[in-house]
Amino acid sequence: MKHTASLGKIKKIDLHKFVPRMAQKGTSPGTVEYIGKPRQETIGINVVAYDDTRVEEKQLSSLAELKKEMNSSGLKWIQISGVHNTDFLNQLGEQFRINSLDVEAIANTTQRPIMIERDDYIFIVLKAVQLETDTNEVVIEQVSMVLGDRYVISFHETTPVLFEPLRNRILATKDRINRFTSDYLLFTICDIIIDLYFPLLENIGETIENTEDELILSPVNINQEAIYKLKRRLVYAKKMIWPTREVISALQVTECDLIKKETKIYFRDIYDHTVQIIESLESLHEITSGMMDLYMSSVSNRMNEIMKVLTVFSAFFIPITFLAGVYGMNFKIIPETGWTYGYLGFWIVVVAISVGMIFYFRKKKWF
Amino acid sequence: MKHTASLGKIKKIDLHKFVPRMAQKGTSPGTVEYIGKPRQETIGINVVAYDDTRVEEKQLSSLAELKKEMNSSGLKWIQISGVHNTDFLNQLGEQFRINSLDVEAIANTTQRPIMIERDDYIFIVLKAVQLETDTNEVVIEQVSMVLGDRYVISFHETTPVLFEPLRNRILATKDRINRFTSDYLLFTICDIIIDLYFPLLENIGETIENTEDELILSPVNINQEAIYKLKRRLVYAKKMIWPTREVISALQVTECDLIKKETKIYFRDIYDHTVQIIESLESLHEITSGMMDLYMSSVSNRMNEIMKVLTVFSAFFIPITFLAGVYGMNFKIIPETGWTYGYLGFWIVVVAISVGMIFYFRKKKWF
Amino acid sequence: MKHTASLGKIKKIDLHKFVPRMAQKGTSPGTVEYIGKPRQETIGINVVAYDDTRVEEKQLSSLAELKKEMNSSGLKWIQISGVHNTDFLNQLGEQFRINSLDVEAIANTTQRPIMIERDDYIFIVLKAVQLETDTNEVVIEQVSMVLGDRYVISFHETTPVLFEPLRNRILATKDRINRFTSDYLLFTICDIIIDLYFPLLENIGETIENTEDELILSPVNINQEAIYKLKRRLVYAKKMIWPTREVISALQVTECDLIKKETKIYFRDIYDHTVQIIESLESLHEITSGMMDLYMSSVSNRMNEIMKVLTVFSAFFIPITFLAGVYGMNFKIIPETGWTYGYLGFWIVVVAISVGMIFYFRKKKWF
Amino acid sequence: MKHTASLGKIKKIDLHKFVPRMAQKGTSPGTVEYIGKPRQETIGINVVAYDDTRVEEKQLSSLAELKKEMNSSGLKWIQISGVHNTDFLNQLGEQFRINSLDVEAIANTTQRPIMIERDDYIFIVLKAVQLETDTNEVVIEQVSMVLGDRYVISFHETTPVLFEPLRNRILATKDRINRFTSDYLLFTICDIIIDLYFPLLENIGETIENTEDELILSPVNINQEAIYKLKRRLVYAKKMIWPTREVISALQVTECDLIKKETKIYFRDIYDHTVQIIESLESLHEITSGMMDLYMSSVSNRMNEIMKVLTVFSAFFIPITFLAGVYGMNFKIIPETGWTYGYLGFWIVVVAISVGMIFYFRKKKWF
Amino acid sequence: MKHTASLGKIKKIDLHKFVPRMAQKGTSPGTVEYIGKPRQETIGINVVAYDDTRVEEKQLSSLAELKKEMNSSGLKWIQISGVHNTDFLNQLGEQFRINSLDVEAIANTTQRPIMIERDDYIFIVLKAVQLETDTNEVVIEQVSMVLGDRYVISFHETTPVLFEPLRNRILATKDRINRFTSDYLLFTICDIIIDLYFPLLENIGETIENTEDELILSPVNINQEAIYKLKRRLVYAKKMIWPTREVISALQVTECDLIKKETKIYFRDIYDHTVQIIESLESLHEITSGMMDLYMSSVSNRMNEIMKVLTVFSAFFIPITFLAGVYGMNFKIIPETGWTYGYLGFWIVVVAISVGMIFYFRKKKWF
Repeated sequence: MKHTASLGKIKKIDLHKFVPRMAQKGTSPGTVEYIGKPRQETIGINVVAYDDTRVEEKQLSSLAELKKEMNSSGLKWIQISGVHNTDFLNQLGEQFRINSLDVEAIANTTQRPIMIERDDYIFIVLKAVQLETDTNEVVIEQVSMVLGDRYVISFHETTPVLFEPLRNRILATKDRINRFTSDYLLFTICDIIIDLYFPLLENIGETIENTEDELILSPVNINQEAIYKLKRRLVYAKKMIWPTREVISALQVTECDLIKKETKIYFRDIYDHTVQIIESLESLHEITSGMMDLYMSSVSNRMNEIMKVLTVFSAFFIPITFLAGVYGMNFKIIPETGWTYGYLGFWIVVVAISVGMIFYFRKKKWF
Repeated sequence: MKHTASLGKIKKIDLHKFVPRMAQKGTSPGTVEYIGKPRQETIGINVVAYDDTRVEEKQLSSLAELKKEMNSSGLKWIQISGVHNTDFLNQLGEQFRINSLDVEAIANTTQRPIMIERDDYIFIVLKAVQLETDTNEVVIEQVSMVLGDRYVISFHETTPVLFEPLRNRILATKDRINRFTSDYLLFTICDIIIDLYFPLLENIGETIENTEDELILSPVNINQEAIYKLKRRLVYAKKMIWPTREVISALQVTECDLIKKETKIYFRDIYDHTVQIIESLESLHEITSGMMDLYMSSVSNRMNEIMKVLTVFSAFFIPITFLAGVYGMNFKIIPETGWTYGYLGFWIVVVAISVGMIFYFRKKKWF
Repeated sequence: MKHTASLGKIKKIDLHKFVPRMAQKGTSPGTVEYIGKPRQETIGINVVAYDDTRVEEKQLSSLAELKKEMNSSGLKWIQISGVHNTDFLNQLGEQFRINSLDVEAIANTTQRPIMIERDDYIFIVLKAVQLETDTNEVVIEQVSMVLGDRYVISFHETTPVLFEPLRNRILATKDRINRFTSDYLLFTICDIIIDLYFPLLENIGETIENTEDELILSPVNINQEAIYKLKRRLVYAKKMIWPTREVISALQVTECDLIKKETKIYFRDIYDHTVQIIESLESLHEITSGMMDLYMSSVSNRMNEIMKVLTVFSAFFIPITFLAGVYGMNFKIIPETGWTYGYLGFWIVVVAISVGMIFYFRKKKWF
Repeated sequence: MKHTASLGKIKKIDLHKFVPRMAQKGTSPGTVEYIGKPRQETIGINVVAYDDTRVEEKQLSSLAELKKEMNSSGLKWIQISGVHNTDFLNQLGEQFRINSLDVEAIANTTQRPIMIERDDYIFIVLKAVQLETDTNEVVIEQVSMVLGDRYVISFHETTPVLFEPLRNRILATKDRINRFTSDYLLFTICDIIIDLYFPLLENIGETIENTEDELILSPVNINQEAIYKLKRRLVYAKKMIWPTREVISALQVTECDLIKKETKIYFRDIYDHTVQIIESLESLHEITSGMMDLYMSSVSNRMNEIMKVLTVFSAFFIPITFLAGVYGMNFKIIPETGWTYGYLGFWIVVVAISVGMIFYFRKKKWF
Repeated sequence: MKHTASLGKIKKIDLHKFVPRMAQKGTSPGTVEYIGKPRQETIGINVVAYDDTRVEEKQLSSLAELKKEMNSSGLKWIQISGVHNTDFLNQLGEQFRINSLDVEAIANTTQRPIMIERDDYIFIVLKAVQLETDTNEVVIEQVSMVLGDRYVISFHETTPVLFEPLRNRILATKDRINRFTSDYLLFTICDIIIDLYFPLLENIGETIENTEDELILSPVNINQEAIYKLKRRLVYAKKMIWPTREVISALQVTECDLIKKETKIYFRDIYDHTVQIIESLESLHEITSGMMDLYMSSVSNRMNEIMKVLTVFSAFFIPITFLAGVYGMNFKIIPETGWTYGYLGFWIVVVAISVGMIFYFRKKKWF
């Protein structure tokens, strides 16, 4: 069970994964409330500013600094690490004139992926899905983005390590990423998030391969929980990727000026990726169902196997045991017991019955 | 079975939940007839009137008073507690020029969620789903609403405790809720009703977690009724929420003047919530199906387990019991019985057969 | 089995219910041929004529009389009892200029519900579903209607008792039904037909409740045919109501002048009813599937139960029976048999083995 | 098994039925190649020509004759018996200016039903489904049609006996069929083909009835292959009728001048028929699934039945057999054996145990 | 198991088949990276150039030569064998002004079928599915195509043997293929690729036939893995063909000038083929599900069979073995043992019990 064990023991479902939660009853709509794992870290503000002449990265410590920074020229990528400080989010929202409903969505880490066009920005929520290589657990982080004319603000639950390569590419200034438009920056961020689904798919695919191997080689030892867990993971991935597809599709066809025609070609490209992921998930789902059927029929066949052993044993010995019982009776007169070759005769009969049984079961193809 | 017991014993389905009922045969359409649990309370009329200068709440005792009250200025929220007095409803309908078909729907508590645009008002029916914390039973109450230009009338089967927080917020006059338009008031009411689905979802999610725990730890003791009840609750929730989604969607895209463009942004927000609820229900449904499969394969495996014990026992003792029978026979001449070490030899053979069996079953991996 | 017996024994499916039949091969399209239960009654013609000054009902005996009657003023509801006389139908069709394809449909009682707009009339076919209270069988009767400018013709397989209340209401002249337009009359007829589905739904719902009770209390005695029959009834109801929904929907959105705008509000109302019926059927269908699963797992659990009894019995007695066999052997020297307390010792060993078994099975949680 | 045997033994699936075949690899598109059962007959050309003054039928022996015949006046129905002569088809195609892709489709008897509008003709492929009364096998014949302005060409794999009645009706010149337009002729041909599905439906419905009878009366003897074959036949019928619906639908809404408005009313009529057939197939499919479930639960219940018999027998005799073994032991001192009423006592104990067992099993409701 | 063995042993799923892979994380979009089986061959460039006067084929060794070649007149089909040299692809892309996203797709052999219209070319990806006749394994090769005004570039993972017949047809210059437009050339290539699905379908259909034969004749020996593998192959084929249908559909309706109206007729033709393939796959899928059900019920029936043998044997011998045990007891007084015909009487009782059992089991219809 080495392979399937790679999925780990079934743990309590992280409710978080399947069941969204809402702000407390009685608060008015647009009230920002943090919903997610309790966190204490200070909120980090990281700004990467670049145009065709310079690239700069700054760690800011307050919104005031950010305000000042915004006055400088160049395209800006503002990375906010942590969405658990609602005061901070409210102030930021005010500064960038973000609708309070959107700020509420940023702070609610159970928000489903959405794309909303507002008057002067586009608001996007996506889910970054990462497979932790050692524990084999799936970690989801919500990434919210605000696309403005000359900036992209991205909100992360923790420090966004996942965007390291992208930041490095920008800082290196030698990459095509340096097209100096905010929509292209948004696209590259989305591209990285979508690409994260591929390792997850590959992990599921590998687990299916391993489980299949076991199903064929030793169906007896199969861990049926593994198949169940597989299904759950597929359901989970589907739940994430379906609305993601809608988001990307909306970005690709939007009439909004913030996304230029040239950039839509790129969104079309990652749209194709999401469709491919969905198709793969559907296929894997069907295959998993087939595996469950295969497993069930293995179990039934195994049962038949066991029953056959029992039946063969019983049918063999029951008649001859009766016979032995007969000649163990204490009737005054049992002629056979007096015969000289009675005992020998008994064994001959036993052998004859046994041979008959063998033929009978052979005919039934039980051996 | 502590956990799953949390769903309580399966009780007779409240027919009410799945099967709508209609007025008596032979009455003409638009005839108002109360369909629902028998009730005796007097109908309560509660009016919250507010504008930018004042907030007032009044308990009225007759429709005449209400008529007078309507002449005063300000936005009015008229809460009617009880829909079982058809005379009252007919008079109210006449006073506010509500179509008799809509009054009929108000009095029929098995009405499905709908949204109908009339010439000078919008009529909405929603279902408020509440989970009673002590009995763990789901209580549904129908809330019908009439959106007029300067008022919202909401009809409740009983006293609308569920709207307490909202009323308090209005009375406190310090909340953004005090945008003084009827459509925003309608939105806040809908928002509260939709939010009620989240605790239900959470309850189902938790039950799934607990049932899963049991399935893995002690599949033998699992209460399969729990899975069945889970499914039924999911079917039920789905039946409520699907038409609710249509209602909210219709409110969000309506061309009717009664709902302003600014308010539609808010309806779009709760529309996203309903979609999220539906997606979660679908996921939970798939997971529940997976659990049923897992349970069935557990049962089959358990069967195999039992059969193996029986077969091993039988196969062990059947041959040696036969042997004992043989030497209990009364043939005149059974050479072995005369041997000095005959008995010892018998036991040696028995041990040999037993060892052989152990090897046989080990090979079959039955231990 | 008192409750489920309420569905009666499964009878041969009335082929009629699932499989439409067509006129004989080789006849040309538009050839009117009666398809349905053989009937001999004379065709009845009943005319209810009314306007704002008078209400009259007449039994006519010939088409000639009908022709004369049509010249009088007022709105007319012509009820034809019996569609098995093709000559009669052909003449009637000619008189009212009904397309021969529609006359063909009237005479074919396996026709599915349809709505067709012709140049100067609307043709509608619906199915009236009635639950016979004593036999609990579902009786379907086809009702075809022709909506003209100043008349509605309704065709029934037998005498239309089901419309008694409606006729009485018209004759009483005190009801709102007396809006003197043919489309409103058509609506009231449709309304009565749709309302007939609710008792059927209720009956299915009750049977589900009862079967559930039994499933929980005594799964052993459950009549699995009841679940099957339930499913079949659901399939059947679905087959009737889906096209009915289309018909009502078409009536609600038609551009045809024969149906006025004010009347469409009423059709919208019964359209909502059909949708509600369909949603309920879907829910009941899912619940029935859940019950089948529950039943299957009950059967499997019961099997486990039986196997456990067998295994426990066998495992208990097989070893000690062997032991008894051993001391029944006739070896010259079996030391134990010579011991004074040999017999006592035997029983002590038997008790010891039994106690061991009890512990073993307790550990396996089989008691 | 008399009834279900009516479906005959399951024969190898006619691959032809499920798997289309294409022309040989490497030939260019539009290359006409015969795909179907090998045939040797000469191609028959039969022309029925008629207008309001005359009706004539001619057997032609060559395309040259046909060419001459086409110059005469009147509407022409050209029946081609046999599509296995590709040279012939190519010449015919050239003569009538039929697109080579369509000629290719005519020669490929695995072509799915299609309707294609070309510049000056409409090309249609349908499947004529016939149930052979004696063997109960389904025979499919492809009928391709070319609708021109003053002619209809129909292509048949064999002699089109199935159109005898239609031809006779035309020759009798007294039938409404003699509307002298090619589109009406096309409609009557399609009408006959669609009507052929009804006997097939009826056959499936009857088999379901019979299988149900058996399932209820003697589930043990049920031929599960019959249910499987039923399903396969349903799948097959569905595969034929779905694209047929599309074809008829296309004919009904086409903008092409070749089909007049008055004729579309007739196509609408057979369109309703195809929809009704599809709905019936769906219902029968659901019922068949229900039967499979019913069968599976019957099998499981039967298993329980068998196990109960075994368990009851074993549990009854195992304890008393042990007891008999005890008193068959040869211990020097077994006090009971010395008692005068020992043997009687033994039987009393046996009876007591048996009675106890009866009560035990009665309590478990196994009798 | 000769037949089903034709599917070979279940091998590890080629992950490649179900799970797409993406370029390495961190590279910017449009970075060309080869994803596929490692290959070392040099990239082959083969150009077939033809117009109405000449046909020429050339093996080129460099892009420079290709550039020169492009200046000559005539329609050109450029076949690139091998997509694992990213430098080469980048240069080629530059030369023909192919968007870098498309070049990336060409190099990624896990790309799903797509069709993208660019400003001056159409980009298409399809999957060529080939069944290796000896190993019975499915080999997929990605074929990407770029349709320009006067050329088609096709990219293949290996040498495109599959297009031999087409090339020969062109070189023979006597075929209609020599319509000298690039869109017609594109169509013929697509036609060949689509036609490759038919042998795959036929293979699946034959395997189903064989498995069915076995299921009926000897369900015991059936290889349930074969059914599973069948399902997997169906899932796989479906995953390939669905997006292929979209591609062909897009080609058929595109507004782009590169595809002329006359050629769309041909695309319509292969569009019909893809629809037919999909319908066949759906039917085969349903049939396979039916087979799984049939298999499961066979297994259960077999179990019943085995249990019956065991029960009959046990029930036969258990009572008489008990009787033999009784008369083997050593009670001082057992009257029967003293009777002269006691032993005979014993056998008479045994026969009587046996006959009784036979009648009992006959009544239960177990023989």
